[in-house]
Amino acid sequence: MYNMNIGVDLGGMSIKAGLVDDNGKILYKEVIPTGADRPMPDIVSDIALLVNTILKRSGCDEKEVKSVGIGVPGATCQEKGEILYCFNVNLTNAPIAKEIHKYVNLPVYLNNDANAAAIAEYDALGREMECFVAVTLGTGVGGGIIINNRLFSGSNGVAGEFGHMVIKEGGKSLGGGLPGCFEAYASVTALISQTKSAMEEDKNSIMHKISIDGVTGKTAFDAAKAGDKTAIHVVDNYISYVSTGIVNIINIFQPEVLVIGGAISKEGDYLLDPIKEFCAKNAYGADFAKHTQIKAAILGNDAGIIGAAMLHKYNEVI
Amino acid sequence: MYNMNIGVDLGGMSIKAGLVDDNGKILYKEVIPTGADRPMPDIVSDIALLVNTILKRSGCDEKEVKSVGIGVPGATCQEKGEILYCFNVNLTNAPIAKEIHKYVNLPVYLNNDANAAAIAEYDALGREMECFVAVTLGTGVGGGIIINNRLFSGSNGVAGEFGHMVIKEGGKSLGGGLPGCFEAYASVTALISQTKSAMEEDKNSIMHKISIDGVTGKTAFDAAKAGDKTAIHVVDNYISYVSTGIVNIINIFQPEVLVIGGAISKEGDYLLDPIKEFCAKNAYGADFAKHTQIKAAILGNDAGIIGAAMLHKYNEVI
Repeated sequence: MYNMNIGVDLGGMSIKAGLVDDNGKILYKEVIPTGADRPMPDIVSDIALLVNTILKRSGCDEKEVKSVGIGVPGATCQEKGEILYCFNVNLTNAPIAKEIHKYVNLPVYLNNDANAAAIAEYDALGREMECFVAVTLGTGVGGGIIINNRLFSGSNGVAGEFGHMVIKEGGKSLGGGLPGCFEAYASVTALISQTKSAMEEDKNSIMHKISIDGVTGKTAFDAAKAGDKTAIHVVDNYISYVSTGIVNIINIFQPEVLVIGGAISKEGDYLLDPIKEFCAKNAYGADFAKHTQIKAAILGNDAGIIGAAMLHKYNEVI
Repeated sequence: MYNMNIGVDLGGMSIKAGLVDDNGKILYKEVIPTGADRPMPDIVSDIALLVNTILKRSGCDEKEVKSVGIGVPGATCQEKGEILYCFNVNLTNAPIAKEIHKYVNLPVYLNNDANAAAIAEYDALGREMECFVAVTLGTGVGGGIIINNRLFSGSNGVAGEFGHMVIKEGGKSLGGGLPGCFEAYASVTALISQTKSAMEEDKNSIMHKISIDGVTGKTAFDAAKAGDKTAIHVVDNYISYVSTGIVNIINIFQPEVLVIGGAISKEGDYLLDPIKEFCAKNAYGADFAKHTQIKAAILGNDAGIIGAAMLHKYNEVI
């Protein structure tokens, strides 16, 4: 009894939901398209129906489920059970908990999707760290902070926005952030833009062959691994920006572990080794204090569902 | 009984110590020169003697004193009772607690000086905030973070180094930080350098008259207030850098209150108003979440002594 939770990972393209056991294993999963521009009541209704579908089709008894958790690309208010602001999906001010309560009588926990992913990775690493930080390098750059086994989200619930940290004052802009923000240099979106610029300047780069179906966050990395000089320059440059943001986060939090997630983290040691080297050399206290361990995320795309299902364990204002 | 503590504020020029009551009031104070380049044992001995002097000359019964706290411009190890690293004073690896125990049988709490100052300001504001951050704009830039009534210093005790946060990648350097770090743009040292550069370019600026005894952090502010255009440009530019760092800190912590301390904070609203305006416009969540209150420090130079005396209340690893 009470050893399962339902986690919902709300994204711009799809809404993923799963029944997750206490060990973070997904037992049953469903995915539906988001239809991000539809009227708010339609999307809210779909999310609530999806939760209901998971319960029914998984064959799980509602009595065995403790909570429903939802990770949102934006900001939420736990007290009101509402989404305060939703990036790329028409759900700003959506009364999501109320709609879910039409179908199931379970507590609903709401939080930011990067916070949910951070919780999942933290739990998978065995918990019990004084400080843990996750940085997600995806379409945008997100962050999650766990201090003393609790999610830290500031005094107003919206802390941890590493993507909005300015690392190059007066630099490039992306989305709604200030010019020079970390997201404008370290997101997949930024990397794709950096890759395209380099390709325009070097018509002989093998990146043109690799990317016949379109430039992605993998294009420059794949070509760099194959020895393409222009691609190596793009990757080196990109990693130096990522490293700058990461060393800032270490200087501020000095976490025991810092996990890098999101699409780019699949590059593994090719990405991580130079970041580790940079931080070992440049982080404050590198010569006299314990170093932060930098690791790649291990849960991949499932982190959002798993972490949302675990919000009930961590979602406490501290 | 047990309602007093001794606080020591260790600085590059002077060592200040005081007997402080539970309300943060300094009852007795002594100041000695640091002699920062002397052999380590001499400085350590002087600090211990100063603590003993405070006890004796104040007429206070040792039984009424709960602890000795020391704020250090660097990093400390509470377990070992040692200074791990000391900026500008020859005290790296100094066994300070052991020396003090030759004279007084009291627990010794060690921490970073910016953390001590943050504690004092936090306590003076009445405590009980989910998150509080203090930023010190002095010779360098320091920071102190209090979460849930406890000092946050990361997993290794040296977190909160806002001065080392890169805000302008590839920019100017200062001291040991990375190029473009906050300290290189927002410290008094940086402002003096910015002021001197502007004075070289404008020989007619009234800053030349104001600063006959040397350029200080007040020079540009005083001339700007008198209407000098070059000085106004220096101050605007400086404040824009400070604002960039402050908005980064808000986006990461979303504290209930952010206090700006250090010499520059004496400029009051002339400094704070544009920072508040910038953050109200640019901080993440400004349009849907509760805003961080930005305030000037109120304790001035005594914050270091008062906060050091209060370390016993906050100096817990969380």
